[in-house]
Amino acid sequence: MFEKEVYQNRRSRLREEVGHGLLLFIGNNECGMNYADNTYPFRQDSTFLYFFGIDRPGLTALVDVDEGKEMIFGDDPTMDDIVWMGAQPTLRARGERVGIDRAAPARDLKTHVANARARGRVIHYLPPYRADHYLFLCELLGMPPAAASLPFIRAVVNQRNYKSPAEIEQIEQAVDISADMHLAAMRLLRPGMKESEIAAAVTAVALRDGGQLAFPVIATINGQTLHNHHHHNVTRDGQLFLLDAGAENAMHYAGDLSSTFPVGTRFTEPQKVIYNIALAAHRAAVAALRPGIPFKEVHFAAAAAIVDGMKEIGLMHGETAAAVQAGAHALFFPCGTGHMMGLDVHDMENLGEEWVGYDGEPKSTLFGLKSLRLARVLEPGFVFTIEPGIYFIPELIDRWRSEKRFQEYIHYDRIAPYMHVGGVRNEEDYLVTTDGKRRLGKYIPTTVEEVEQLRGGA
Amino acid sequence: MFEKEVYQNRRSRLREEVGHGLLLFIGNNECGMNYADNTYPFRQDSTFLYFFGIDRPGLTALVDVDEGKEMIFGDDPTMDDIVWMGAQPTLRARGERVGIDRAAPARDLKTHVANARARGRVIHYLPPYRADHYLFLCELLGMPPAAASLPFIRAVVNQRNYKSPAEIEQIEQAVDISADMHLAAMRLLRPGMKESEIAAAVTAVALRDGGQLAFPVIATINGQTLHNHHHHNVTRDGQLFLLDAGAENAMHYAGDLSSTFPVGTRFTEPQKVIYNIALAAHRAAVAALRPGIPFKEVHFAAAAAIVDGMKEIGLMHGETAAAVQAGAHALFFPCGTGHMMGLDVHDMENLGEEWVGYDGEPKSTLFGLKSLRLARVLEPGFVFTIEPGIYFIPELIDRWRSEKRFQEYIHYDRIAPYMHVGGVRNEEDYLVTTDGKRRLGKYIPTTVEEVEQLRGGA
Repeated sequence: MFEKEVYQNRRSRLREEVGHGLLLFIGNNECGMNYADNTYPFRQDSTFLYFFGIDRPGLTALVDVDEGKEMIFGDDPTMDDIVWMGAQPTLRARGERVGIDRAAPARDLKTHVANARARGRVIHYLPPYRADHYLFLCELLGMPPAAASLPFIRAVVNQRNYKSPAEIEQIEQAVDISADMHLAAMRLLRPGMKESEIAAAVTAVALRDGGQLAFPVIATINGQTLHNHHHHNVTRDGQLFLLDAGAENAMHYAGDLSSTFPVGTRFTEPQKVIYNIALAAHRAAVAALRPGIPFKEVHFAAAAAIVDGMKEIGLMHGETAAAVQAGAHALFFPCGTGHMMGLDVHDMENLGEEWVGYDGEPKSTLFGLKSLRLARVLEPGFVFTIEPGIYFIPELIDRWRSEKRFQEYIHYDRIAPYMHVGGVRNEEDYLVTTDGKRRLGKYIPTTVEEVEQLRGGA
Repeated sequence: MFEKEVYQNRRSRLREEVGHGLLLFIGNNECGMNYADNTYPFRQDSTFLYFFGIDRPGLTALVDVDEGKEMIFGDDPTMDDIVWMGAQPTLRARGERVGIDRAAPARDLKTHVANARARGRVIHYLPPYRADHYLFLCELLGMPPAAASLPFIRAVVNQRNYKSPAEIEQIEQAVDISADMHLAAMRLLRPGMKESEIAAAVTAVALRDGGQLAFPVIATINGQTLHNHHHHNVTRDGQLFLLDAGAENAMHYAGDLSSTFPVGTRFTEPQKVIYNIALAAHRAAVAALRPGIPFKEVHFAAAAAIVDGMKEIGLMHGETAAAVQAGAHALFFPCGTGHMMGLDVHDMENLGEEWVGYDGEPKSTLFGLKSLRLARVLEPGFVFTIEPGIYFIPELIDRWRSEKRFQEYIHYDRIAPYMHVGGVRNEEDYLVTTDGKRRLGKYIPTTVEEVEQLRGGA
């Protein structure tokens, strides 16, 4: 937890920005897996964490902008709770720790909200992303919730998008743990191991200092499947292994890295060729980073590098800029170059990418570009991933080929020798500074030489 | 997945038992952690798994008892789904694998249900335990759902409580993985390590062959807190470490074991004394197991052994049976001796313990006894845990002492030297057979000698 003043200042800025009304913060509840009491690891709502810092289920908070009052609502533990869950500080004590001097039982929230509404006051709330939040709002408001409050959303985004030095320190810690996850996998994997063995080892690194996974681990020989959470395959020499995994540190800041390495000790020649094109795209994106550049241009720089590389080996042809503009590269690179990262691995995705990553501009609907989560002009304090990749997705290639799509850019008949490459992605996390950018956290091997050395020499 | 016929037979028995109407099965959906698309590991609903075997989100099923028809509902993957999640079999193919020949898009369920209701047919459903299921039922029925169907609940319980040989094989596999988790922890722990290091290592064992955790890991030097999911303490020589952890195997059957061992290599004298009383209680419970005995008596046998032991060291006095009847032992043993186990670690807790563990009898409201999840007469095929324990809970002891509660049985002034013991529990999993019982899975060290040998010799 940060110092009390951090939370006070954040709430104070928020009050100023929203200007009027009551801000309702709904903390997360426990979530049952196969019955109510067998819960997943508790994850507090990130906006609740950001403004209140209290990492406990069953809490809500109200910030009365007009009257400058702040209150948290929740129930103190009973003796049964103490027997099962241990002794706990009171809600009042937890509140004082973050500069809130009013605490009340959970049931009191309804009265406060009803009184405020009776006096014609506006209740601002954020979009519910869990069904129990939606039900809670229905119950609280006496009707299904209308659209969430845009001023509230924009004010939250407008703070959380700019990471403070203290936050960057936390993120860097999470990235360091994430790097250790990748290094552990790169040292451990041997042909014949199951993907699940790597996923397990990587998870253990995330947990061992009190953190969690920031997102479900991707640990696969089928890297062409972008969000592949199955780990049942046995690895074989000659395959590439794609790991996309990151830790959330104890303060719940995320890291997010990807690495791609041979299951054996060496890349095959086609793997090496594709890996180097993906790496060139990665480097083109990094080279473009600076305050003032729209991230969409960074994305196009990566896409252009992929087209150039594909042209060099004969899989694409035609004019690079035109191919990128048309979206032809999306056959091999159907996703985005990066996304904001902070308390959430896709930071504030629950508040809407159009606000977080697009500053209110509409997103493209073009295949490929529609999956770009960040496009806005970069500013100092922004933290995001850089993760272009190259993927050979059989179903997508078959469909485009049968539709004769982008024949002016793609040589479909030359793809076959590269299909076994599957998917290649390297991913690092970057901060925009006042005069450029900085890679966050520990370096992990990236070049073919570095990777082969670690894989061969481990 | 079992053979097709297993699922067909289970559904056929269910249709016979419920007798009429439509049975609605709601499979689980993905559940977001901090935003909708950052999901926890998917866990299918256990009843859905039991009768349909399909381990995918977003499915529902209808069994029309009157007309003998069975249908599953869900959406086949789009190209976007394939790009992100990989190629998938169609729902029809998945259905055929478990003997269902009718598959329809998710949206069709509503029409089927509405038509059936228009014809006056009863829709049976189980109690929703996730908020999205509740919302789904509201939407499907056009109103908040009334009470769940008791005939449906009882028919499900009446099958799932009796484990088949094939299920016992699966459970035993899960218990074996669980035993490996405990052995790993007992070998790894050294003074100075964080609890989280043990939790991480234990989690990795659960995951490495494609399984999951069956429930949140308890790995703590504060074993007196019964469900302590915090792992932030640093361990010290002289402390006891309590591990309660179990795996769910790839088929989602659970194991559930507990062990208690010194952070150093040897128990202190008071730790040893209390450990041996808890072990005697464990053995008394196991000795009582046989078909025909009410599990409540097994629980009382364990409680009596604890009172006897506590009398021997001067912490309790008076007549053992009377102390147990009054609930005085619950100061040290405030929970139950065991619970049913199967596809859920507390099997079918979502359907109601009064049906699963009490066969419809009401549960006691007495402190301690109210936490006993299983009381009914044992029958061959029942699988459950045996886990009596002894806990020194400061807040509970202070409260009872200040209330002068059970002074006729408890010597409050003699408890102090044992407070540092914290909590002690050993837990194993048992099957009732036609002529007795069988411990499931690998043995883990249990006696003081066995534990110290492993701790000292590792």
